[in-house]
Amino acid sequence: MSVLRPATESDITEILRLIVELAVYEKEPDAVVTTEESLRTALFGETPMVFANVIDGEQPGELAGMAIWYLTFSTWEGVHGIHLEDLYVSPQYRGSGYGKALLLHLAGLCTERGYARLEWDVLDWNEPAIGFYRSLGAVGLDEWTRFRMDGLALAAAAA
Amino acid sequence: MSVLRPATESDITEILRLIVELAVYEKEPDAVVTTEESLRTALFGETPMVFANVIDGEQPGELAGMAIWYLTFSTWEGVHGIHLEDLYVSPQYRGSGYGKALLLHLAGLCTERGYARLEWDVLDWNEPAIGFYRSLGAVGLDEWTRFRMDGLALAAAAA
Repeated sequence: MSVLRPATESDITEILRLIVELAVYEKEPDAVVTTEESLRTALFGETPMVFANVIDGEQPGELAGMAIWYLTFSTWEGVHGIHLEDLYVSPQYRGSGYGKALLLHLAGLCTERGYARLEWDVLDWNEPAIGFYRSLGAVGLDEWTRFRMDGLALAAAAA
Repeated sequence: MSVLRPATESDITEILRLIVELAVYEKEPDAVVTTEESLRTALFGETPMVFANVIDGEQPGELAGMAIWYLTFSTWEGVHGIHLEDLYVSPQYRGSGYGKALLLHLAGLCTERGYARLEWDVLDWNEPAIGFYRSLGAVGLDEWTRFRMDGLALAAAAA
């Protein structure tokens, strides 16, 4: 299989393409407002806000898949974890084990670094993904619900 | 009401006490393995892993409540968000608006800094908390489920 490697600045255009592809798959085609410039700052600025690992595609410069992640913290365990924000493999590269390779790579980073856990959020209708994650030993935290304030609610709360 | 302020190193003992109180409330009394030393590194080391805001109690050095949080990243928006890991007010200080003050303070940080969202996870049986969050304009992301690998599953995946 292709090389799994940390992203570099030359991957920015492709990473943004995959972010948009994933948003379309998640039925939120207009949700992506990030730009190449904001991604460059986030991934490769003086203080990285997020990290990316990628797998090369068959065409020069093309990416087949990516994992975008950031560090979390468990107050119970007193150590970092990894939150996998986006895991995505382009349709033409599915079935090659790329998604699994990316996920297991992050699991390896956790154990190497002594992080407590690897977590990610899954849409409940995405049954193929859920079956895949369970097959790797992941457990759904069904007793928890994420709450969010954003947009107008956030502005109102802050006011 | 008491002062709401960023935590300092002299708060570590009290912060750990509140972390344990919260774990007991969440029916996981034995889950806390973090120590004062690991918390000190996480909160006040060279590269902070997590942040805390606190509200003073009535006794010298006592804390009435706290919010522990870290930075997230939205690939869609290209900016940070805040994940509120622990929000806790000791029972004797409830009903004073401390929880709301801590949450709204973090909402204010988000808008000041241009962060996209404030998020946190709630146990589904915790109806008083859920009603409180909804009253502030927060929305439950009911269509998502968190998946996690830790412990043996993480080690097996990494192997």
